[in-house]
Amino acid sequence: MPLYQDAIGEMVDAFARLPGISRRGAERLTYHLLQAPPEVADGLARAIHDGRHSIHYCQRCFNLTDEDLCPICRSNRRDKTRICVVEEARDILAIEASGSYKGLYHVLGGTISPMDGIGPDDLHIAALFARLETEPIEEVIIALNASVEGEATTLYLISHLRDKNVRVSRIAQGLSAGSDIKYADHMTLSRAFDGRTEIQP
Amino acid sequence: MPLYQDAIGEMVDAFARLPGISRRGAERLTYHLLQAPPEVADGLARAIHDGRHSIHYCQRCFNLTDEDLCPICRSNRRDKTRICVVEEARDILAIEASGSYKGLYHVLGGTISPMDGIGPDDLHIAALFARLETEPIEEVIIALNASVEGEATTLYLISHLRDKNVRVSRIAQGLSAGSDIKYADHMTLSRAFDGRTEIQP
Repeated sequence: MPLYQDAIGEMVDAFARLPGISRRGAERLTYHLLQAPPEVADGLARAIHDGRHSIHYCQRCFNLTDEDLCPICRSNRRDKTRICVVEEARDILAIEASGSYKGLYHVLGGTISPMDGIGPDDLHIAALFARLETEPIEEVIIALNASVEGEATTLYLISHLRDKNVRVSRIAQGLSAGSDIKYADHMTLSRAFDGRTEIQP
Repeated sequence: MPLYQDAIGEMVDAFARLPGISRRGAERLTYHLLQAPPEVADGLARAIHDGRHSIHYCQRCFNLTDEDLCPICRSNRRDKTRICVVEEARDILAIEASGSYKGLYHVLGGTISPMDGIGPDDLHIAALFARLETEPIEEVIIALNASVEGEATTLYLISHLRDKNVRVSRIAQGLSAGSDIKYADHMTLSRAFDGRTEIQP
């Protein structure tokens, strides 16, 4: 006898295919939705369907949007002389939530990763260089993950931005806020020392 | 400016309302679905919608089913003289997966919890007693969670089953498989000693 009905199994399978959701987690979500008021399940199903069919990439920066350009590219209140280069659209959420940046963005859509067969041409790098020709960009801020691939992609971008007549910077690596030196890994400490800032007397 | 578009926000909100999914987790799922092939999002939306509209409670045992009776109640291969009483339908999954029981079930739909205003009349207890009148039940096995509410509900059931002319048992509490005595909590050890089984010489 099958463990559960087809319709239940299909829900569990669909949830278990999502990142970070185990089979047990998928069962938990399924049984919750099946026993909650029907509006809860219908609301979720509708939000997923409507979202997937209305949202696509911004034509300029590859953020996600339901119009041609994303709200950041459309806004008049952003500093149009700076582009922050990120790996994926979700990184924009985190940076915006921190309130630490008011310029534009450019989403690469990944990082250079020869192991996975991803080269520069598979990312939105040509589109970034094209924006430097048509927009009044003065500074490119590279904000990629502090991973091996992020590092390789940062070095690739730096070397190709050298002759573009823009300032290029990258966000700092070092101790994360609230962290303890005695628990920090070697690489973090080494980068924190390399990136030390001089105190003005 | 809003952090994300309405359609994205609605997906994030809908996911974040599910149990065990944080706001960050909801953002992760949303951005994954928006960037995966449309079939992934459509398949999930359809599975949720179809599941919610085809699945309901078994009329006999309150398991979840897409027919009048669940597959366990319909089966001819189950021991119809035993009922295992569980808190929720999902518990049946775990017990079935363990292969340790071949009888019928009865889902209470919760536990007695005066703090939450849940009394015996809010659970499927009357339906359980009614089944003892109409079905050839010889043993009721109580398999509720090892929580305060599970314990209270077990004691309530035991006292009310006393005059029903059935054997009543409860599943054992003690060390979980693979666990270490030195890390076990006091309550677990105390129950393991209370429930010790004599070795036949």
